[in-house]
Order: sequence, then structure tokens, then C-alpha cells
Amino acid sequence: MRTQVVIIGGGPSGLLLAQLLHTCGIDSIVLERRTRAHVLARIRAGVLETGLIDLLEQAGAGARVRQDGMPHEGTWISYGDEAFRIDFAKHTGKSVMVYGQTEVTRDLYAARDRTGGQTEFEVEDVRIEGADSDAPAVSYLQTGQRKRIACDFIAGCDGFHGVSRTSIPEAKRRYYEKTYPFGWLGILSETPPVNDELIYANSDRGFALCSMRTPSLSRYYIQCEAGDHTDNWSDDAFWAELKRRLPAEQAANLITGPSIEKSIAPLRSFVCEPMQWGRLFLCGDAAHIVPPTGAKGLNTAASDVHYLFSALSRWYQNNDADAVAQYSQHALARVWKAERFSWWFSKLMHRFPHHSGFDLRMQRAEIEFLRSNQAAQQAMAENYVGLPYDD
Amino acid sequence: MRTQVVIIGGGPSGLLLAQLLHTCGIDSIVLERRTRAHVLARIRAGVLETGLIDLLEQAGAGARVRQDGMPHEGTWISYGDEAFRIDFAKHTGKSVMVYGQTEVTRDLYAARDRTGGQTEFEVEDVRIEGADSDAPAVSYLQTGQRKRIACDFIAGCDGFHGVSRTSIPEAKRRYYEKTYPFGWLGILSETPPVNDELIYANSDRGFALCSMRTPSLSRYYIQCEAGDHTDNWSDDAFWAELKRRLPAEQAANLITGPSIEKSIAPLRSFVCEPMQWGRLFLCGDAAHIVPPTGAKGLNTAASDVHYLFSALSRWYQNNDADAVAQYSQHALARVWKAERFSWWFSKLMHRFPHHSGFDLRMQRAEIEFLRSNQAAQQAMAENYVGLPYDD
Repeated sequence: MRTQVVIIGGGPSGLLLAQLLHTCGIDSIVLERRTRAHVLARIRAGVLETGLIDLLEQAGAGARVRQDGMPHEGTWISYGDEAFRIDFAKHTGKSVMVYGQTEVTRDLYAARDRTGGQTEFEVEDVRIEGADSDAPAVSYLQTGQRKRIACDFIAGCDGFHGVSRTSIPEAKRRYYEKTYPFGWLGILSETPPVNDELIYANSDRGFALCSMRTPSLSRYYIQCEAGDHTDNWSDDAFWAELKRRLPAEQAANLITGPSIEKSIAPLRSFVCEPMQWGRLFLCGDAAHIVPPTGAKGLNTAASDVHYLFSALSRWYQNNDADAVAQYSQHALARVWKAERFSWWFSKLMHRFPHHSGFDLRMQRAEIEFLRSNQAAQQAMAENYVGLPYDD
Repeated sequence: MRTQVVIIGGGPSGLLLAQLLHTCGIDSIVLERRTRAHVLARIRAGVLETGLIDLLEQAGAGARVRQDGMPHEGTWISYGDEAFRIDFAKHTGKSVMVYGQTEVTRDLYAARDRTGGQTEFEVEDVRIEGADSDAPAVSYLQTGQRKRIACDFIAGCDGFHGVSRTSIPEAKRRYYEKTYPFGWLGILSETPPVNDELIYANSDRGFALCSMRTPSLSRYYIQCEAGDHTDNWSDDAFWAELKRRLPAEQAANLITGPSIEKSIAPLRSFVCEPMQWGRLFLCGDAAHIVPPTGAKGLNTAASDVHYLFSALSRWYQNNDADAVAQYSQHALARVWKAERFSWWFSKLMHRFPHHSGFDLRMQRAEIEFLRSNQAAQQAMAENYVGLPYDD
């Protein structure tokens, strides 16, 4: 087999890239380790920057998010019983869209079906060959047979545990990382959200987040200990703890119900530099992880896809090799900004076991400054709605 | 003896308060542990907020700073060979004034002389009596004799090592503090400043600051190890190290000369809560310390003096006891903001021994964000020129 771009990973990044390439007549084959049903069952992020919405539209997968997504023009931050709003519309003229990642993936698969794009599922033992040559290839096992695809470029969209990043020789990459000493215990419940916008809550008992997927599907999180397990948390215990971390008014309005999903996610900051090696390019979680505070994971993956799509289309359409050579540099400039924002927002909102009395006062002073200072709110809003894609 | 307000400490805070009280006909006696010559020889901060300039003017000590001070409408931040400017005038319509604290103290003593205010020097073993009663008093030893002043109120302007703060019973106060794992090695030299505005430099070798007192008197600092000693630093070694930490252009323009003062200061954040006990009120370093990055020490002392003067004048002029009761609360709200800014700016600019590769990238990303984001620059500028005194 031969194609122009082999895309490893059939999640939203890989599919978005495939469909964007298709609009320029660039062929790709997407390789996915799991079944399509499995990919579509993953519950992930749900707050989309306008940059990502624009890319979905460009990829022919933007109709449903425009129709069913819930635009949010602000968000709430609470600490103890105080709460204030960051007005995205006022400070940036933009909003974010609440729409589940699951739905994004569904829309992209529908677009891929419409354009007849090739996606191979349940591929195993993916191997990258000759990434540092002019003739790379990817081979894999499928139903017991090894298959091989020769290509011009390889896009590694296969997540943190994928094969792409580790295919870059160790001496050619460097990792930067931070592990946070806590996790997020999250539930989905078929209840109306407590508030029409998200609430990020800093409380003496730890962080909480009131989020949502639809007007009748709520997503709530509470900071938990790093080694905690969902078995330790009955629904009742979760709701009781969530209420303790919200301002009294919101706690009183909270409508509870049985959880339909419950899970614990660790919090980590991670970046691999560079994000390319020869003709292999990393996108999204394959290259970097952010803690979920501020919802930058999927959005930063999308900005990688934007830079890679832009570089590949200039290669094929204008014989321009520079953009491809500079992919990592361009993508990383924005990645580090998103890492900084996610790290800052995580530090601002969580309780850290090692925090001294002074550290706690600094956290409170920083929240007070954000509450009282328009410039600080604007800087926060610009990050939250998504910094521009510099070209 | 009897007076209305005993002011412990004859530094700039105590004198400013005394002269402000005088404008409302409120009598005070200032007690100073050292000689006047000693107080006037202290070399301290040199960047004044407009709020402090206004207070000096109100106290009848503003003529010379208006004439000889150097207004700065911006400052430079460098990292490695890159540098960018924060434009105070553009973002806030304000500037700061470069004018030595030594000169401020001189102007305040001159004003005190003109108004015939009483200042007692070389007082020892100061004791605060009955601060929690309606009839407080202060006693002290002078030339071997114990003297006693009955008063209405006591202002503790006697610095971090003074008697005022520790006169508050331990059970009635709480300390918040942070020690930074490095110091500032500073020199004064009779050379023209390398730049017409300050340069705050973040380099791989640690922080440096190019400051000044006058067009022919420069003040330079470099981050040094916590336990370092000036004996380890010849002038040549200092200049060589400073040059290594500046962008090449500034390093090339640096004019060196013999140091006329050389000292090492530790960096500390410290706050005592509350800042009052009965009829005793703390101002400035007696209640809080900031690391010098951003020059908030003297300026925050001045905002305390503003709040205390405002409260005392309302007591005497309007029989209003509320403002006096709320002094600590009002002063602390602004103190914590200044603590936050000084802590943030210190973390942004220094090398910390425990910094990981990720931490260093976050520091760089934060500087890059500041360089590229107008809202972040505005938030920084608003803090640097001084947040408003809320009444």
C-alpha cells in the first residue's frame, strides 16, 4: 500500500488532520488500535475553542457543533462563598463552545465516511520505518497479517501511550514534566447543570468543577488524593463532598442523581521536545499533556493539527519545505503557552499538600487580584478562549 | 510627657506619618533608636509610586522629589539576549519616580524641622504599656534615664526587628512567611546608569537588576547564594558577573567603576496579621517584608501610613472610631496584593536551586506570555506603578 500521509491514531486529532488534508486533495490512511465503537465511547473533554470549531468546519465536520453546541460567554470562579465571573465576550469578543469530545469524534467519523477516507481499525504492533529518510513507511499487524504502507509523512496522533513519540530516538528528544499530587474524581449524571456556565471552585477542602455536556447532562469533578479509587466514592459521598466545596447558593441549587460514569484522572504536565523527527510529526497527547484545569488538552491538539496541516499543504501545493521543517517550533510556541496557562490555573485552584500558610495566602491574593483587576481578567479570558494560531 | 500619637521609629514611615498628622493639628513624638546621622546614612530602596509622592507633598516634603526625582515611564525585562519594555505610561497613565529612600528621609526630617516636631534620638529599651487599654503609654531609656509618654495611640514604624510587633501577644498575631533560597548582592557606583530605565534581567546564571539613584549614581544587583559574603566579591568579579547576566548590547555599554557601597540582602516575604492590637498599629516593615523585586517595600509602608493617617484624622476630626477599628483590615488588603506581586515577580526572574526542567520552561513561558500579551503587561504595569489606595 502507499499513501501520502499515514496518520497513527483514530481519535479526534488524527481524524481532523485526515479530513483537513482531504480538502486539499492530500491522501491519508488512519490507523487505529481499537474498534470504532470503542473510540466513540471514550468520555473526554467538552470545552472547545473557536479555533477548533473553525477547523472542524473547514474539515466538513462543523454543522452539528454549530447547531447543538452551547456557546459560553463566560465562566465562574468561586472561593469559599465568594464567586465572580470572567466575561469572555467582553474581554475578547469570543466565547467557547460546550460540546463533548465524543460528539466531535462522531462528527469527524461521519465526515470521513462521506468522503470515503480509509481508516484501519484494530491494528496492532505498529512500527515506524525510516522516519529520518525520504521514504518512510508504517507497518502493522491486522487479523494476524503484517501490512505495510509506504508514505511521504507520518503523523503521530496516537496519544501519550502511543508508539510515535517513543519512535524518536532517545538522544533526539527531551521530556519536561510535572506530576501534581492529586487527581480529579469525575462523574457524569443525567441531571440539569447547577449553573448555565462552568464553575471552577477553590475551597478549603480542595478544588471542584461544575461542568456539563448538554442541558440535561452534567459533568462534575472534585480534587481527590493521588492514589484514590472510585470504589471509595459512592454517588452520595461524591455529591456531599461536591456541595461542601461550592458556595452555599450553588450547593443549595445542585440537583443530584445517579452517576452514569465515574472515574479518576491523574493531573500531569508533560512536553516532549522536539515534536518532529525527520518525517514523523507528533500531534496532541503524543507530544504533550496538560492538567485538565482550563480544558486545553483537545484544543492544543487541534492547534498542532492546524500547524501540521498548514505545513503539509504548503509542501504539496507550493513545494515549500520550510513550513514542514519548522512544524515543531511553530507548534511548541503555542503548546508552551497552553502548558503555562493550565499549570497556572491548576496552581491557582487546587489545594497542594505541601502548601504553607503563606502559600495559601498567595493563592487567595492571586484570586482576589483576578477578581478585582480587569487586565488580569482579560489575560485569563484570552487564554481560556484560546490564544491565536500564529502563522 | 503626653502627646496624641507616639510614633516608634524615625525612618521614612514614622516621619511621614508624623508630618501628615501635623497637617491636621495632631501632635506626635517620634522615637528613634539610632542617631539622625545614622538614619540618614541608610541606603535602601529608590523607586517611588505616585501614591507615595502625593503623600510626601501632602506632608510638606514633596518639593525636592518633584524637582530632582527621575520619572520613569517604563521598565525593561530581559531574558538571555532578548529584552522588552513594559510601558507604564501607556498602560496606566502613570509613572514611577526614581529617588533614593535616603533623600526621602532627608526631606521628611527637613519638613519636621520646619514644623518644630519633636523627635527623640538614641532611645533604648522602648516599652509599650497598655496598648489594649484606653490609656496607652510608651517608655524608654535616654542617656540613662527612663522617660514615659502618655498618649492616645501608638504607631509601630520600627521595622522588622523593632519592639512594636512583638509587643502584640503571641496568641493575638499570626505570621506568614517565605524565605527565598538566595540573596541580592548590591553595589552603588559613581557611574552613569547603563540604561535610562531599569533593567530586570533573567539569565541562566541568575537574576540581575540595573537600577540607579541619579544620572551619575548607579545601583546594580546580582542574585547570589543565600550564605554568600561581600568578601567573596571584588568589584571586578561583580562587574564581570553582572555583564554575563545582561543582554550583549547592555553588557557592552556598561560603564564600571569602584563601588562606594557593597552589601548582601536576603530575600523574604513576611506578613503579620493583624496589623493592630488595641491602640497599637503597625506600619511598614514592622508588619510585613517583601522581596525587593519590584520595589514594593517603602511603597507599601507608605500605603499603611496613608490608611493609618486617614483613620486617625477621622478619629480626631469626626469622632469616627470605625476607621481606626478597621485599620488592619484596610491596610492588609493592599499589603497582600503587594506581597503577591513581589512574590510573583521574584519567582519570575530568579533561578531557584530546586527548579526542574519543566519549572524553567514555565518561567520562560510566563516571560514570553508577558512579552507578547498586552493584558498581562497592563496587569504588571498597574502593580508596578502601585495599585490604588482603596478607601
